[in-house]
Amino acid sequence: MPSLPGFFANYQETMTRALDAMVPASRPDPVRDAMRYTLLAPSKRVRAVVVLLAADLCGGASRAMPAACAIEAIHASSLILDDLPCMDDAPLRRGRPTVHTVHGEAVAILAAFGLLNDAYGHLSRSYDPALAARVTALYADAVGLDGLVAGQAEDVLATDAAISFETLERIHRRKTGVLFSAAATAGALTAGGSAGDIEALTAYAKNLGLAFQVVDDLLDVTGTEAETGKAVRHDARKTTFVSFSGVDGARELAQELCRTATLALTPFGSRAARLGELADFVAARRL
Amino acid sequence: MPSLPGFFANYQETMTRALDAMVPASRPDPVRDAMRYTLLAPSKRVRAVVVLLAADLCGGASRAMPAACAIEAIHASSLILDDLPCMDDAPLRRGRPTVHTVHGEAVAILAAFGLLNDAYGHLSRSYDPALAARVTALYADAVGLDGLVAGQAEDVLATDAAISFETLERIHRRKTGVLFSAAATAGALTAGGSAGDIEALTAYAKNLGLAFQVVDDLLDVTGTEAETGKAVRHDARKTTFVSFSGVDGARELAQELCRTATLALTPFGSRAARLGELADFVAARRL
Repeated sequence: MPSLPGFFANYQETMTRALDAMVPASRPDPVRDAMRYTLLAPSKRVRAVVVLLAADLCGGASRAMPAACAIEAIHASSLILDDLPCMDDAPLRRGRPTVHTVHGEAVAILAAFGLLNDAYGHLSRSYDPALAARVTALYADAVGLDGLVAGQAEDVLATDAAISFETLERIHRRKTGVLFSAAATAGALTAGGSAGDIEALTAYAKNLGLAFQVVDDLLDVTGTEAETGKAVRHDARKTTFVSFSGVDGARELAQELCRTATLALTPFGSRAARLGELADFVAARRL
Repeated sequence: MPSLPGFFANYQETMTRALDAMVPASRPDPVRDAMRYTLLAPSKRVRAVVVLLAADLCGGASRAMPAACAIEAIHASSLILDDLPCMDDAPLRRGRPTVHTVHGEAVAILAAFGLLNDAYGHLSRSYDPALAARVTALYADAVGLDGLVAGQAEDVLATDAAISFETLERIHRRKTGVLFSAAATAGALTAGGSAGDIEALTAYAKNLGLAFQVVDDLLDVTGTEAETGKAVRHDARKTTFVSFSGVDGARELAQELCRTATLALTPFGSRAARLGELADFVAARRL
């Protein structure tokens, strides 16, 4: 079993090939180009890694790839929306101009729509019906009005507004935590994990997801554009974990969340070593 | 078997109740409000009617409602996108201000995203896995890069440009025809229709869908805002079936497409009477 860096290196090529096949370059058109531009951009693909590692832990990752690709497509679609002029109005993402600055707003929005749509199409075509329907219901719940869509709306509407720490946490649990939990659960489902496995992995992933967001806020303040691939100091108009707790407080919070995440893995013992390493990576990441 | 107007009247209340339950008003928030504003707007719900009538023809509509609701949610989401400032920039839809003018662009886009997402979630929760996966794959193909998303992109990018009749027809076959075909096929699938049933219904629906769009173009020129619920003379910058063929030519084309649609129903004999009536209604509609 390779350590986490080895695993990252091993799976990146397989993952890129799988994503490439999911939205093939067959017939170039603007929306397809914009979808591939986002989906195939250099990225850590942390949500996909969570799917694969959770599956690996529950019996093997051999059936995990379609669920991993689908969650990356969902995540990619949410990034396109996040960056739109009417939302965060971001010029850079992953070191490159954002989709709407390259392809225009209409094509960007249709590409986001296409990626979300193809995530579900991909699940329905890649899995036996029982697994497809379960992962579809899981992802749809994570994206919908108790998850990503609600968190993103509250985040946009909270710009320039004073919000409480509880509201901030709720926004990011929905925007990020819920999708991380769905990733872990999906991985477990593809490998036949037990209800107990899923419970432990959900607790791990929801804290990991929130930690990931806290570090995002930190990097907006402490990072450079070259490190993060995004315009930094972009969140000045927003309430963030750093504006609440300061740099040191936010760093402590991220570490605390990663410790809580790792603690949830106790039932798995040493078999969960790589998920523990992933939590360490998230707490310490610079990109 | 009630005639088409009777059927329209009967099913509207059931349909509205089913859509209301799909996105319940439980906890008001801006995105949920925007989703319900679009999904529950007064509407003919022609795509849903196609699902229900196709199912009825193939053995019974008792399992057709979730597929009908899902296709209405997909259609509603595409209307929100169509009307955005970066696309058609439309002020009115179904007699009311468009979603983005009421809720702002960010909430409108997230509502569209939420409706597409919930369409798939609804299918996965409402049907046995085998049927859920089949209808999901069917709808995802109709929405994706060979359907709605591609048609909408080509439509937006063609504004102000000279396009051929073939291009115009391809745009609207993708934007409208493909979803109508998917509606008919879904209805047949929920009722256990045969491959032959599906083939005939697909031929019917794709021509009906294109006719529907031709009449839309006609109504933009000949209708009033009160009749159509939309700003009329809004397509002046676009190439439409009317700008190609004139009012009389477009009217003939719509009638021809509806005749072709009805002809495809021949194998069903008199059992397809209501689908034939629906084609007559589309050819003659004023709203």
